[in-house]
Amino acid sequence: MKNPVRIAVTGAAGQIGYALLFRLAAGDFLGPDQPVRLQLLEVTPALKALQGVVMELADCAFTTLADVSTSDQAESAFKDADFAFLVGAKPRGPGMERSDLLLGNAEIFRVQGRALDEHAARGVRVIVVGNPANTNALITSRNAPGINPRQITAMTRLDHNRAVALLAARANAGAADVRRVCIWGNHSTTQYPDLHHATVSGRPALQQVDAAWYKDEYIPRVAKRGAEVIAARGASSAASAANAALEHMRDWVNGTRSGDWTSMGIPSDGSYGIPEGLVYSFPVTCHGGNYTPVAGLDVNAFSRERMDATRRELEEERDAVKQMFAG
Amino acid sequence: MKNPVRIAVTGAAGQIGYALLFRLAAGDFLGPDQPVRLQLLEVTPALKALQGVVMELADCAFTTLADVSTSDQAESAFKDADFAFLVGAKPRGPGMERSDLLLGNAEIFRVQGRALDEHAARGVRVIVVGNPANTNALITSRNAPGINPRQITAMTRLDHNRAVALLAARANAGAADVRRVCIWGNHSTTQYPDLHHATVSGRPALQQVDAAWYKDEYIPRVAKRGAEVIAARGASSAASAANAALEHMRDWVNGTRSGDWTSMGIPSDGSYGIPEGLVYSFPVTCHGGNYTPVAGLDVNAFSRERMDATRRELEEERDAVKQMFAG
Repeated sequence: MKNPVRIAVTGAAGQIGYALLFRLAAGDFLGPDQPVRLQLLEVTPALKALQGVVMELADCAFTTLADVSTSDQAESAFKDADFAFLVGAKPRGPGMERSDLLLGNAEIFRVQGRALDEHAARGVRVIVVGNPANTNALITSRNAPGINPRQITAMTRLDHNRAVALLAARANAGAADVRRVCIWGNHSTTQYPDLHHATVSGRPALQQVDAAWYKDEYIPRVAKRGAEVIAARGASSAASAANAALEHMRDWVNGTRSGDWTSMGIPSDGSYGIPEGLVYSFPVTCHGGNYTPVAGLDVNAFSRERMDATRRELEEERDAVKQMFAG
Repeated sequence: MKNPVRIAVTGAAGQIGYALLFRLAAGDFLGPDQPVRLQLLEVTPALKALQGVVMELADCAFTTLADVSTSDQAESAFKDADFAFLVGAKPRGPGMERSDLLLGNAEIFRVQGRALDEHAARGVRVIVVGNPANTNALITSRNAPGINPRQITAMTRLDHNRAVALLAARANAGAADVRRVCIWGNHSTTQYPDLHHATVSGRPALQQVDAAWYKDEYIPRVAKRGAEVIAARGASSAASAANAALEHMRDWVNGTRSGDWTSMGIPSDGSYGIPEGLVYSFPVTCHGGNYTPVAGLDVNAFSRERMDATRRELEEERDAVKQMFAG
């Protein structure tokens, strides 16, 4: 057995947290030979419920679970963390304006950014799941000057997986037959699921589905899939979100498969006309524990328009919270 | 990739089902090279919520998930099933007598036993999770004369895992250091967690904990752990129950580790004075896809008394539902 790694999870008693923790503890993230220490953060009123979750984790007798700690203090949960899943966020309440939601979350992620900066391992890899994920990641990063911004990412993998699954279903193929789908931009309804580079069973995806379906049905359906799940299930996506977070981190560590890529919200390096530093979803390949945005893709006018629309939304979000940036 | 296997899951939209399905679909049961078809059963009013779960399963783009079907008819869900996780059961309502609970569930499992008998693969392996699990398994079996009763089992793995974890914690050891714990009898508060054969780090467990703790704290705490979780979490054990169900089936298929055993509710072969056919939890080893009760263990007076008490409870349960047996 290797030495344990420390994994911090925020919002650990929530529905996504509950779906995520048992898979992390079972070895689904780092494999059966890598023990993990889970460092769980919750708001004070949820600590009792979290204790019940800790009991259930114990009751699994996982050989890969070295230890579990709980806290309502980010400083404690992020101490020496090698990985951080920032799942907890303030949900949109009744009558709340989007700007209220942005600022409410900005405060949470400012605090967490500082705590990561002061307490996490220098190589910590962070995924922000809590919405608005891209801008929350940006705030986290801008309050953690001692951590390379490339280590703080936002999840668009759930959108990516939805895009893969809905394309596979349309093309009567399996998910494994689909490659090079990507999500550009914000994890919001402005996101742009791009099939111009995608293949199904080795053939171009856009030769296998019709253009009207792609534009009028597929793009909005991927972007609004969360609402579709809520309408059926009576609860928001939890297990699929947890799975996406796990896969985002696993691919980052272990690499993407040959001939394929995935989508991650990352600080732009200026590629594709996206302003440097904006946390924007790009197609990326992962290798050797690092991710690299896919370079040199053709961007036609159809794509350009959508990539810019979601970029503008992210710029507006950034401008609405910039008073929360340190320094 | 191999040919898909068919896995039926009942109560699929419930909390245990929700925690179980994503792990089955992710390959946690049969590995990354074995595609699965999930055949999900729910009561009619839960079919809409189940559709939301199916969407989330699709949204994971699992390469090991070949197909998902849903139904409110056992005949359909069990069609050609290679494995069946019988999770759904009637919960105990306010003012309900134990006999009402037994009979209400007996009717459910009579129907499911017949459906398995008529529609499942002849080699189907069944785990009953829904309570009262042992007696529900007995009814299922007694209504499925064409299926070897040894293929229809009840889950005591959650109790087993709890017993391992609580012993490990007491002995300041890891779960992997604990071996040969076992649960005898009924998945109820009469169950008997037996440490007389258990070791921690190779040394006898009962030399490492004191006798009063074992008798007065450990045994009742393992037996009542479910209530402890509910009190903290505000909801009953779900992810830990799903994990136990998965491990029960995985060990049955893949085998128990060398030098260790697990606990399964199985039809007694008459060993240890337990009447033949009663579904009673025994220590078992698994090898080559089969389980074998551990033979020849010494049973002292302390153990005998507890093994008989839980046996008597199971006989009473059996007698309360025997009008539900076929033939």
